Amino acid sequence: MRHELFVVKPIGRVESTLADRSQAPKQGDEGAPDAWLSFDPEYLDGLRDLQQGSEVLILTWLDRAGRDVLRVHPRDDDSRAMRGVFSTRSADRPNPIGLHRVEIVEVDANRLRVRNLEAIDGTPIVDVKPVLDRIGER
Amino acid sequence: MRHELFVVKPIGRVESTLADRSQAPKQGDEGAPDAWLSFDPEYLDGLRDLQQGSEVLILTWLDRAGRDVLRVHPRDDDSRAMRGVFSTRSADRPNPIGLHRVEIVEVDANRLRVRNLEAIDGTPIVDVKPVLDRIGER
Repeated sequence: MRHELFVVKPIGRVESTLADRSQAPKQGDEGAPDAWLSFDPEYLDGLRDLQQGSEVLILTWLDRAGRDVLRVHPRDDDSRAMRGVFSTRSADRPNPIGLHRVEIVEVDANRLRVRNLEAIDGTPIVDVKPVLDRIGER
Repeated sequence: MRHELFVVKPIGRVESTLADRSQAPKQGDEGAPDAWLSFDPEYLDGLRDLQQGSEVLILTWLDRAGRDVLRVHPRDDDSRAMRGVFSTRSADRPNPIGLHRVEIVEVDANRLRVRNLEAIDGTPIVDVKPVLDRIGER
């Protein structure tokens, strides 16, 4: 079955001291530094109501990932078992969309400073969504 | 600042009795029916290890959404206040990526039946990710 293709248009970029993938912790609570999310000024109206202290989901496009990966070695798994990529958070996947839950610690016009973002410097941002409830994500 | 554009290649489609947006509940726990996720056979290796009873995040491309929306009227808000789209879950947004937390209730080769998916029939699927912890999403 052939599907229509769609175009993702980044709305901003991550500014971080993480310079490459080897430095990036796999999840933000493992010691990622704070980062700035710098949005293009044309999206300023969309950023209204995002407030310091709130948690949001950041969707990124992991532009340095490989897209032809369907099976991966999960980290923290010493076995030689490969896993299907959709049961992992591998950056390498057919559509390398990163999903990051972060806390907004500062709002400065079209820039947000966030805590514990594991994305590397220059990563394109494609969406921001509110966290909907205390127990998880829909 | 100009960004590089990226191409999203759908990996499958939603099969649901929800035929259009007017029927779709805004969040899955408001009474969406079960749905089938039908993946292209070429992604079968990536689906390994997804199991009945587990919860996953489904990322979709909301192909019937408008992309030039930056301010929206949130539902359940009788005031006339508009909100910045990135503090809402509106389908209409610059990159209309849907994020749905669902439970897998059946696995049949390249098809997954899931509970409480609010996406309408034919919606392209772009990614599947595991839920990482009990308290939420990163």
